[in-house]
Amino acid sequence: MDLLEVLRLDELSHGLANLSMFPYFELSHYVVSIMALREQPGAVEVSRVSPLACWFSSMLFCFGGAVLSGIMLAEPPVAPLSNSTSVLLASVVWYLVFYCPMDLVYCCAALLPLRLVLSGMKEVTRTWKVLGGVTQAHNKYKDGLLVMIAVGWARGAGGGLISNFEQLVRGVWKPETNELLKMSYPTKITLIGAVLFALQQTHYLPVQKHHLMLIYTAFTVVNKSRMMLTGSSTSPFAAIESVIYKTLFSGSSPYAAITGEARETCADGGAKSRKTSTKESRANGAAEQQSPPSPVSGQSSSVETKEESENDKKTN
Amino acid sequence: MDLLEVLRLDELSHGLANLSMFPYFELSHYVVSIMALREQPGAVEVSRVSPLACWFSSMLFCFGGAVLSGIMLAEPPVAPLSNSTSVLLASVVWYLVFYCPMDLVYCCAALLPLRLVLSGMKEVTRTWKVLGGVTQAHNKYKDGLLVMIAVGWARGAGGGLISNFEQLVRGVWKPETNELLKMSYPTKITLIGAVLFALQQTHYLPVQKHHLMLIYTAFTVVNKSRMMLTGSSTSPFAAIESVIYKTLFSGSSPYAAITGEARETCADGGAKSRKTSTKESRANGAAEQQSPPSPVSGQSSSVETKEESENDKKTN
Amino acid sequence: MDLLEVLRLDELSHGLANLSMFPYFELSHYVVSIMALREQPGAVEVSRVSPLACWFSSMLFCFGGAVLSGIMLAEPPVAPLSNSTSVLLASVVWYLVFYCPMDLVYCCAALLPLRLVLSGMKEVTRTWKVLGGVTQAHNKYKDGLLVMIAVGWARGAGGGLISNFEQLVRGVWKPETNELLKMSYPTKITLIGAVLFALQQTHYLPVQKHHLMLIYTAFTVVNKSRMMLTGSSTSPFAAIESVIYKTLFSGSSPYAAITGEARETCADGGAKSRKTSTKESRANGAAEQQSPPSPVSGQSSSVETKEESENDKKTN
Repeated sequence: MDLLEVLRLDELSHGLANLSMFPYFELSHYVVSIMALREQPGAVEVSRVSPLACWFSSMLFCFGGAVLSGIMLAEPPVAPLSNSTSVLLASVVWYLVFYCPMDLVYCCAALLPLRLVLSGMKEVTRTWKVLGGVTQAHNKYKDGLLVMIAVGWARGAGGGLISNFEQLVRGVWKPETNELLKMSYPTKITLIGAVLFALQQTHYLPVQKHHLMLIYTAFTVVNKSRMMLTGSSTSPFAAIESVIYKTLFSGSSPYAAITGEARETCADGGAKSRKTSTKESRANGAAEQQSPPSPVSGQSSSVETKEESENDKKTN
Repeated sequence: MDLLEVLRLDELSHGLANLSMFPYFELSHYVVSIMALREQPGAVEVSRVSPLACWFSSMLFCFGGAVLSGIMLAEPPVAPLSNSTSVLLASVVWYLVFYCPMDLVYCCAALLPLRLVLSGMKEVTRTWKVLGGVTQAHNKYKDGLLVMIAVGWARGAGGGLISNFEQLVRGVWKPETNELLKMSYPTKITLIGAVLFALQQTHYLPVQKHHLMLIYTAFTVVNKSRMMLTGSSTSPFAAIESVIYKTLFSGSSPYAAITGEARETCADGGAKSRKTSTKESRANGAAEQQSPPSPVSGQSSSVETKEESENDKKTN
Repeated sequence: MDLLEVLRLDELSHGLANLSMFPYFELSHYVVSIMALREQPGAVEVSRVSPLACWFSSMLFCFGGAVLSGIMLAEPPVAPLSNSTSVLLASVVWYLVFYCPMDLVYCCAALLPLRLVLSGMKEVTRTWKVLGGVTQAHNKYKDGLLVMIAVGWARGAGGGLISNFEQLVRGVWKPETNELLKMSYPTKITLIGAVLFALQQTHYLPVQKHHLMLIYTAFTVVNKSRMMLTGSSTSPFAAIESVIYKTLFSGSSPYAAITGEARETCADGGAKSRKTSTKESRANGAAEQQSPPSPVSGQSSSVETKEESENDKKTN
C-alpha cells in the first residue's frame, strides 16, 4: 500500500516533469501577467496614449525573467523576441486584455473561478522558469551555488525585480520602493525555489529533481489558491522570517542606546570620524524613536507605508 | 527611354550603396548630434561644470545606437570606443561645438543653409546604421524578424531611446517622458526603416537592398529638409497613424461607460477583484473626462503636455 | 650606492607585484567599503528594514567594479558571485559591520589608527583592480587605448561610478549628482591610474609594470593617509586641474556676452534656429550671472551644492 502510494507519486512527479508548458500554461502566465499590468495605477491611460509603451511593458511583465537572467549571464536580452510564437501569443493576449471591444476578455478573466485556475497554472510555470534559470547558470558556473540561486531567482521573478525599470517605460518612477526593500510574496517564494533547486542541482539536497518539482509546484499552487480564496496576504513564512530576523538582524538594536553613547566615546579619532559618529548616532536616534521595524510584523518604516497597499495588491 | 531611367536609378542606387560614410557623413552626424545636445536645456551649464560628463553625454548622442544594440546582443557596449578615429573625430567636434573661442563653430553650423546640408547628410547615415543593426542581428538570429527590427531600431535611434539615461549623466531625470511614450519623428522614421530592412532581409519584401536604401534615404532626406524649411513638425504618417490608432486601439473606449458598469457587475468574485475593478473604473473615469487622446491628433494627456514643446524641438 | 638603491627599489617593486591580495588586502577593502556604505545617510535604517537590500548594496560597494567592467566587456556581471570565498568573506564583514552585538566591529574599525591602516591597505587593492581591468580590456581590444582606460577606471572605481544604481537598491534616488558631474578623489585617482597603466600596457609610457605599480601604490597610500590625518579633502591635482580647465574649457566664456549677441545676429535662418539661439543665450545669461564655475576652485553650481558635504565625506 505504502509502496503503491510512493509509486503513484513517482509516476505523478514524472508526469509533471514531462508536462509541456506550451501553450496552455504559458498562455495562463501571459494572461495573469498582463492583467496584473493592467491593474497597475495609470496603466490603462498609458495603453490609450502609447500602445507601443504598453506593449513593451507587457512584454517585460511576460518575459522580464528571461531578459534579466540573460543580462546577468551576458546572453542577449533580446533572445525572448526570437521566439516568435511566444511573442505573438503574448501580443495577442496583450491586445485582447487592453483593447478588446466591450472589455470582454478582461472582464471574463477577472471572474474569480477563471482567475483562480489561470493563477494556479501560472504558478506551475514558475517551477519551470526557476529550474530553467538554475540549469542555465549551472552550464556556465559548475560550482557557483550563489550564481545559480541568483539566476534562478531572476528568471522566476524577473518581472518583479526589474519593476522599477518596467515602470519607467510607462513614465512612472518610484525609487523609494523595490522588490529588495520589501519583497512581495511571489518574489519570496521564487527565491526559496531558487535556493532549493540550486541545492538539488549541486547535490546538497538529497532529493530527486522531479520529486522536488512536484513538491514545490504543489506548494506554490495550493498556497496561491489559499491566498486568493481567503483574500489574505499573510506569507506562510511569516513566523520563520520573524524568528530569523530577530535572531540575526536585530543584533545591535537592543543596545542601540548604549552603543550610540559608546560610539561617541570610542570615536576619538580625527575630526572626520567624530563627524561620522555624530551622523551615525543621529541616524540611530531616528531608528530608536520608531520602534525597530521587522520586515514581517507589519510595522513598516515611512519608506514603505505609502507603497504598502499597492504592494499588497501585487502580492495577490 | 524608360529602360534608361531604370538603369540610371539602378546605377544611382549602386553608387549610394557603395558610398563611404567615413569621414564626411559621420562628421555631419557628430556635428548635428552634438549641436542637438547643446540645445538641450542645461547642457551648456553642464559643459562648464563638468567637461567629462559633457563629453560622455556627447559620445552617447553620437554612439548611443551602437551602445544600445551592443547591450541588446550581448556584445561589449564599449566597442565604439575601440574605433579611435571615430571617437577622436567626435571628440574634436564636441570640443569645437562647446568650447570654441567666440562660439564660432556652433554659430556657423547653426546657420540654416549649413544646418540643412548637415542634417541631410546625417539622415543618410541613418540608413547605414539601421541596415547595420539589422545585419548584425541577422548574423545571430537567422529567423528572428522581431530581433532584427528591434536591433535595427536601436542602432538607428539609440540616442533617443536611451535619452533617459543620457540625461542622467548630466544630472537631469525626467521619468515622465521617454521615446516609447511619445515617439519623436526620428524615432518613428527609424522604426519604419528597421521594419522595411528586416522584411527585405528575410525576403518578405520583394525588393533589392540597394533599391530600398535609395528609396529610404531619399525619403528621409527630403522629408527632413521639408520639415526644417517649413518649420513644421507634423509627421508625414499622421494620417496613417490616426487610422491605425482609431481602428485598433480605441476598441474599448466608445464602450468605456458601458464596460465601466459591466465590470462593476461582472466583478462578483472575492473582495480583491471587486477592489480591483473599482480602481479600474476610476482610472477609466479619468480617461473619459479628458476625451480619449490620440497620439497623433495633437491632444495629449497631462503626462505629455509639459514635455511637448521640448520634444517638438528635438524632433527638428 | 646609487646602484644599490636602484636594486633595492627593484626588489621592492618585484615584491609588491608578487604580493597576494587575498585575504588581508581584500578583507581591508571589504571593511572600508562596507563602513563607507554604513556611513551613507539612511543606510542603517535600510539594514533594519531589509537585510537583503543592505547585503546587495554592500556587495555592490565591494564588487561594483567587477560588475561594471563585466557589463562593459559583455562578460557575466554575476561572475563575482561565482567566487564563493570572496563573497563569503564580504558577507561576514557586512554582517559584523551592521549587526554585531554592541556594534563592536564598527566601533573598533572606526578608530583612527585602525581605519588608517585599513584604508591604506584598501588603496593597495586599487592598483591591482585598475591593472586587472586594463589587462582584461587588453585581451579583447589589443589597440583600444580608450577601452583599456574605460575598463580600468570602471574596475577600480566601479562602486562610485554606479552609485546612482547602488542607491536605488536602498530606495534612494539622487539624479542631480553623479561621479561624472562631480568626481570624488578616489574616482579621480583611479582615472589617472587607468590612464597610466593603459599607456604602460601599450608601451607609450616607457616604464616597467612593476615600477609603475610601486610608484602608483606609494602615491595613493601616502596621499590617502595624508588626507585622513589632516582631515583635508583638497585634491593634490587641484592646481593642474585648474590650469587645464582654464586653458581648455573656459574658451567661450570670456566672450560669452559678445557671442550671445553675435548668435542673435548670425542666427538669421528659419524661425526654428532663431528660437534655439534665444534659448541658448538665455542659458548663457544664467551662466554669466553666476561667475563661470571651475570644478576645482570650490565654487560650484546649484546642481552640486546640496550634495557637496556628502561627497566630501565620500572622498575621505
